Amino acid sequence: MKISEIATIIGVDFNQEDFEITGINTLKSASKTELSFVSNSKYINDIKDSKARAIIVDANTKEFVPENSIALVVESPYWEMAKLSKYFAPSIEDETLPEPKIGEGSKVSPKAEIAKGATIGENCTIMAHVYIGANVTIGDNTTLHPSVCIYRDCKVGSDCIIHANTTIGSDGFGFATSKLGEHKKIYQNGNVVIEDSVEIGSSTAIDRAAFGTTLIKKGVRIDNLVQVGHNCEIGEYSVLVSQAGIAGSTKMGRNVVMGGQSAIAGHLEIAAFTTMAARSGVTKSIKESGLTFAGFPLMEHRLWLKLQAKLAKLVK
Amino acid sequence: MKISEIATIIGVDFNQEDFEITGINTLKSASKTELSFVSNSKYINDIKDSKARAIIVDANTKEFVPENSIALVVESPYWEMAKLSKYFAPSIEDETLPEPKIGEGSKVSPKAEIAKGATIGENCTIMAHVYIGANVTIGDNTTLHPSVCIYRDCKVGSDCIIHANTTIGSDGFGFATSKLGEHKKIYQNGNVVIEDSVEIGSSTAIDRAAFGTTLIKKGVRIDNLVQVGHNCEIGEYSVLVSQAGIAGSTKMGRNVVMGGQSAIAGHLEIAAFTTMAARSGVTKSIKESGLTFAGFPLMEHRLWLKLQAKLAKLVK
Amino acid sequence: MKISEIATIIGVDFNQEDFEITGINTLKSASKTELSFVSNSKYINDIKDSKARAIIVDANTKEFVPENSIALVVESPYWEMAKLSKYFAPSIEDETLPEPKIGEGSKVSPKAEIAKGATIGENCTIMAHVYIGANVTIGDNTTLHPSVCIYRDCKVGSDCIIHANTTIGSDGFGFATSKLGEHKKIYQNGNVVIEDSVEIGSSTAIDRAAFGTTLIKKGVRIDNLVQVGHNCEIGEYSVLVSQAGIAGSTKMGRNVVMGGQSAIAGHLEIAAFTTMAARSGVTKSIKESGLTFAGFPLMEHRLWLKLQAKLAKLVK
Repeated sequence: MKISEIATIIGVDFNQEDFEITGINTLKSASKTELSFVSNSKYINDIKDSKARAIIVDANTKEFVPENSIALVVESPYWEMAKLSKYFAPSIEDETLPEPKIGEGSKVSPKAEIAKGATIGENCTIMAHVYIGANVTIGDNTTLHPSVCIYRDCKVGSDCIIHANTTIGSDGFGFATSKLGEHKKIYQNGNVVIEDSVEIGSSTAIDRAAFGTTLIKKGVRIDNLVQVGHNCEIGEYSVLVSQAGIAGSTKMGRNVVMGGQSAIAGHLEIAAFTTMAARSGVTKSIKESGLTFAGFPLMEHRLWLKLQAKLAKLVK
Repeated sequence: MKISEIATIIGVDFNQEDFEITGINTLKSASKTELSFVSNSKYINDIKDSKARAIIVDANTKEFVPENSIALVVESPYWEMAKLSKYFAPSIEDETLPEPKIGEGSKVSPKAEIAKGATIGENCTIMAHVYIGANVTIGDNTTLHPSVCIYRDCKVGSDCIIHANTTIGSDGFGFATSKLGEHKKIYQNGNVVIEDSVEIGSSTAIDRAAFGTTLIKKGVRIDNLVQVGHNCEIGEYSVLVSQAGIAGSTKMGRNVVMGGQSAIAGHLEIAAFTTMAARSGVTKSIKESGLTFAGFPLMEHRLWLKLQAKLAKLVK
Repeated sequence: MKISEIATIIGVDFNQEDFEITGINTLKSASKTELSFVSNSKYINDIKDSKARAIIVDANTKEFVPENSIALVVESPYWEMAKLSKYFAPSIEDETLPEPKIGEGSKVSPKAEIAKGATIGENCTIMAHVYIGANVTIGDNTTLHPSVCIYRDCKVGSDCIIHANTTIGSDGFGFATSKLGEHKKIYQNGNVVIEDSVEIGSSTAIDRAAFGTTLIKKGVRIDNLVQVGHNCEIGEYSVLVSQAGIAGSTKMGRNVVMGGQSAIAGHLEIAAFTTMAARSGVTKSIKESGLTFAGFPLMEHRLWLKLQAKLAKLVK
């Protein structure tokens, strides 16, 4: 998309030489041909290092935009980015892509739907009512149970099992809100990557990234009815028990255990080998590895037991 | 259905002139040709204003039935209403309805199932394994992702997006229980209406009303794995984050925000612009607009923070 | 499978006369032709009464194996059992089974998939995108709404209703973990049995047993988005409200009520007529019948109210 068209859409005067913008991305990840934006003053430090060719900013933030980048000044950068995200969203399916490729030994139910551009490895089992979207790749020996839905551009590794009615790569929960309280969708143009030997239960939801990738690493075990928000990263061999939920952009190390109905807020980091008891609610990053937590607000498990003992005394 | 047949089913003597009953409804909503019932003494005040042609009551409540209405006296009105609800339930599908209508520019996967009597607007995308029930109407430019299921008689507006494996209009959780502890289903003969520009995540469940409508108003954003009970009303631009749950008949104003894993009990009213932090549990109506709450039992967010600080001291 | 092959797989020397092992099972349930294992020292008392033909044990447990049984001594019995479970797992479908039988008066959508070996009773409604696995049996007058998935070997009774996108019999969350933190799947070779007159909401997950049966008894009511773990037993007429979760192997008596978002840990027993308020978290067995509980940790509901009143005073 031409920068001049972008400027017109977001209502900015633009009189320089025109050029092509290939995508929208975060300040940190944007390439030299991409557009970025500053949604929040806490990202101001990321501006000066950004490679983005153009950056949507408000008047206060304009001065931080580096020389090699063009500042597009608007009142509400996040709202304007949401408006533009639609133009960079690929179509749900694409008839111009090549016919799907199915590896040797794979059994695909005639009642499954495999979109053009998809690639399925060898010895897979794709059951009835599965949907595999455009450009999805599936490794070898992977089983997708009935009504599993994998949205376009996602990748599933080898030796994976995904149980019935689970959704991989539906849109993350992203929108900008105007002063009047109306919402504008931020199209989620990233994907989900699931590495090898992962098993995922039924009716679980793993959202695609807004930009980049939601990553489920090797050997992870996810139970039924679990929520994984956009741009999360789940470390190797981590275990998410039923009805656990993780908000967007949280990253955890390997062998983290989340008990049933536990939850982690967004944009946190959880150290490897952390265990969260059932119903834990995590609102701050956990930096020390190997500890066990409980409660909401979160505390070390032994403290939580002590607190509950004190509370029990209150009513005696 | 004839009133004489109804009387026979619920074991009431009926010797007056026969007439037709067109449906069952609440005391407040019943029309002059409908039947109603008194399930709970707290609804006694609604009896005298009811337009219902006949009302199922117990012996104690009989005296409140107005002159223009016939009292059908039984031991357990709720149980007998449950018994009758089955007779007023429409069939799941109906072969006598006209062929479904698909608007210009809409793409319907051959692997979707569109029941007779359904109407789909223009430029919609109906993906594989979607089910659209009898008499459902879908507006223009709406996208239904794979395995979305919309039960009969529901309405979805224009410019909506519903993500994979979500269910709209399955039966609300309604039943009567006998003294021996057995349950009898209350057929859920209402519907769900979703207004324009609503986006709903994956594996979410929005139940149809027992009578009347479960209403999702314009611009609402609902995340994954959310539960909306029968007869709820979600105000314009409200935001329900993942794994939130709302029991039946609760009504909220516009721009209400429910955090992740929060919950609201049934039959409450939530003022516009209320924010509930993650894990909030609401058991009373919220009348003042614009406040932020947390905790279970619910309290203002600043009080909750204060309480947690006090509790933290207990274990030091 | 020959015991000699089993010994080779788990790296045990075996020089006795060879014989056939027909399956793996728990110490208590194993028959005279089955293999069992001791995963945890708390099961030591079960060894001496086990009828199992062979038992996988570690060096410390070997002495408890009775005379009629062969001890297979390994370092990590649970890990070796997980390794073996794969060999006893039936294929997902089986082309050698007979064509499915559909009872008189049953309507099966051509867009449903019924695997070989399945049996559907009379007057059932099987809607589009339903999956019914190998050897599944469905009683009479049962309705399966769109995208319901029933895995192989499960049984659903008569007069049941299962709502859209619900999964019956997906694999329980079972795996062994090595000292290095890697997981090995324990194939879930049991099933789910749902008795008569049960209604289950949408996007609910009921896991198949590791060995034996996950049992949902007569007249149970399960709401949307509920998790029932492997090997649970839900008593007659029990009521599980939306987003409730039960970990594995918990057994409850009749007419138990679990409020919304409540949870029960694994391996517990819950007395008949127990009521758990919304958000209850149960970590110990409940032995006395007819009580009402709340909170996490759980306490009697009246105590919980008292505690909340005290806590409210703390912040005044």
